[in-house]
Amino acid sequence: MPESPIRKLVPYAEAAKSRGVHVYHLNIGQPDIKTPQIALDAVKNNSIEVLAYSRTEGSEDYRRKIAGYYAKLGIELNPAEILVTTGGSEALSFAMGSIADFGDEIIIPEPFYANYNGFATAMGVTVVPIVSRIEENFALPPIEEFEKLISPKTRAILICNPGNPTGYLYSEEEITKLAKLVRKHDIFLIADEVYREFTYDGKTHHSILHYPEIKDQALVVDSVSKRYSMCGARIGCLISRNKEVIQTALKFAQARLSPPTYAQIASEAALDTPQSYFTEVKREYVDRRDLIIRELEQIEGVKVARPQGAFYCIAELPVEDADVFAQWLLESFNHMGETVMVAPAAGFYASPGLGKNQIRIAYVLEKDSLIKAVSILKEGLKQYNKR
Amino acid sequence: MPESPIRKLVPYAEAAKSRGVHVYHLNIGQPDIKTPQIALDAVKNNSIEVLAYSRTEGSEDYRRKIAGYYAKLGIELNPAEILVTTGGSEALSFAMGSIADFGDEIIIPEPFYANYNGFATAMGVTVVPIVSRIEENFALPPIEEFEKLISPKTRAILICNPGNPTGYLYSEEEITKLAKLVRKHDIFLIADEVYREFTYDGKTHHSILHYPEIKDQALVVDSVSKRYSMCGARIGCLISRNKEVIQTALKFAQARLSPPTYAQIASEAALDTPQSYFTEVKREYVDRRDLIIRELEQIEGVKVARPQGAFYCIAELPVEDADVFAQWLLESFNHMGETVMVAPAAGFYASPGLGKNQIRIAYVLEKDSLIKAVSILKEGLKQYNKR
Repeated sequence: MPESPIRKLVPYAEAAKSRGVHVYHLNIGQPDIKTPQIALDAVKNNSIEVLAYSRTEGSEDYRRKIAGYYAKLGIELNPAEILVTTGGSEALSFAMGSIADFGDEIIIPEPFYANYNGFATAMGVTVVPIVSRIEENFALPPIEEFEKLISPKTRAILICNPGNPTGYLYSEEEITKLAKLVRKHDIFLIADEVYREFTYDGKTHHSILHYPEIKDQALVVDSVSKRYSMCGARIGCLISRNKEVIQTALKFAQARLSPPTYAQIASEAALDTPQSYFTEVKREYVDRRDLIIRELEQIEGVKVARPQGAFYCIAELPVEDADVFAQWLLESFNHMGETVMVAPAAGFYASPGLGKNQIRIAYVLEKDSLIKAVSILKEGLKQYNKR
Repeated sequence: MPESPIRKLVPYAEAAKSRGVHVYHLNIGQPDIKTPQIALDAVKNNSIEVLAYSRTEGSEDYRRKIAGYYAKLGIELNPAEILVTTGGSEALSFAMGSIADFGDEIIIPEPFYANYNGFATAMGVTVVPIVSRIEENFALPPIEEFEKLISPKTRAILICNPGNPTGYLYSEEEITKLAKLVRKHDIFLIADEVYREFTYDGKTHHSILHYPEIKDQALVVDSVSKRYSMCGARIGCLISRNKEVIQTALKFAQARLSPPTYAQIASEAALDTPQSYFTEVKREYVDRRDLIIRELEQIEGVKVARPQGAFYCIAELPVEDADVFAQWLLESFNHMGETVMVAPAAGFYASPGLGKNQIRIAYVLEKDSLIKAVSILKEGLKQYNKR
């Protein structure tokens, strides 16, 4: 199993804290946004006496309500096309396990969410990376590049839209191109759409479920974690209109019995969250994004891709190895008793050597802390390059 | 993925219910016992505002309390040797994934908990069954038989103690023999000990963690599901004193981020459940076991193994194919508007053809319902064999 790039610096952060240094966490996508009260209350007011297994596929009521949520997005789904999972993580594992055998390949634009590697390794699937570039804001690589990588072992293309770690939002044109491609080669298209609500600058999210021509090829991974700031619930779902895929995924699901019961109560209630919550949350993320991009761009030698979704951005730093730098920030540096923890981006690339001078920043802190954190990063870069 | 033998009859049960037939469920290990109030209250009284990821390995407090629970059993553990998982299911997956590569083998006495097959398939591990027999109450097969099966690909022996589906409780002598065996061949010993508390007739449970000579080879799978009647929590743990194993398991755990937060709150509180709860629950299960064994033995042609732990038993029926019979019970039979659902035992065997005339019964219903269910089974057998 590969080590998570978000986690490997944790011991250094803990050591820094134990020395009394305050650490700003820009390294992990744990939002500070409050969970909707309606979800918290549903759990507090539960009347469970026997905390029993739920249905393997998730409760009927909850799946019906998820279908209702999708209907509002203009996507018609039958509850039987929705499999409730223990987090988006499990949905991803099930997706890979259901469509690929040992040694099969899945093409993923890099940089990508590092845990895709973990699920792939666990399922015996080989990740074939295709490079997207900071210079192009991490747009979809040319279709010809995908075609060069498609082999008889290719089972799927996997995208994250909007992207973690890139913040890139695929355009309608890009999704249409991908739909054509997977149809042509008769492979699956898996889209991790857990950040769907977080799109900025008036741009719209285009779900692969909007494309009837790939209805048997489209698998969507969803989760309540980021949408409702409920990362600790561990509830997601896998969606596919392909009956065979859902049947196979259900067998994986049966082995682990059921998704967590309390978390399903919270997640079902969360679907009644008023729109005003999202409007506010979105405004907050846009402000944070604008702020962090502005602050980062003011640092000499820093190049940053402008995210249009999710709450991450990739920044290129004037250092040779961001991994070494990130560790140094925790181990050997502090600015008036404070430092910052970032995720070195190399771990989000599968191709060795790529992203070595890049970091991923999660803008999940409030604005004052973000300003503070970036100023510490700036000071860190200055001192680091003076050594 | 193999289909779960507990699940494949579900559509027939649903059809029976939709015809208005009442179905007694002896097929699934979902206890009707109330969850300890202290656990339910902890969740109701939680003060979470942001439902955040917990630590990947489970909260420090919870792991420390688990260590405290083990200390009372005379087993000294360090919290770092405990990895909190999403159910015993995930602990089993992590155990297999951490010690075996694709194509490696794990020897398991059959009949065994059918989902072991699912986890093994998902992890690319080959299950090598070794037969235990109803005539011997499903005691440990002779060590010589194990030795015949050990190959260069063998990575572990996996036992469930007390056993699901057998109810068999391994003796100290049997565990000692296994410990010697795994030491001799330098392989792992995985013990699923989730039913540890449920031992009857004054017999004691012998954990593999009591054997210092296999401290680097012992992996224990544990869970709150049955102990506290909290199947819906989805909290378990993987325990090993082998640092390398725990480090590898932690990488699997990191990929899925964290176990569910609410359920950890319930599980931590559950550890303060007063002993009186277990005394009562155990008395109830003993009564149920005595009752069901007595009732089953009164049916002509039925042979039943006497369980000394957990809450399952395997019964041999005077039918050729218990699978067909179990389906018939749901599809074509009812006794005054009622029928019974059992788990055909063939699905708990990996060797084709074994257990064909056996069923697994979970005695998780209250006594009146158990009596009723067995009398319906008796009537069913009579009518079935008269056809």
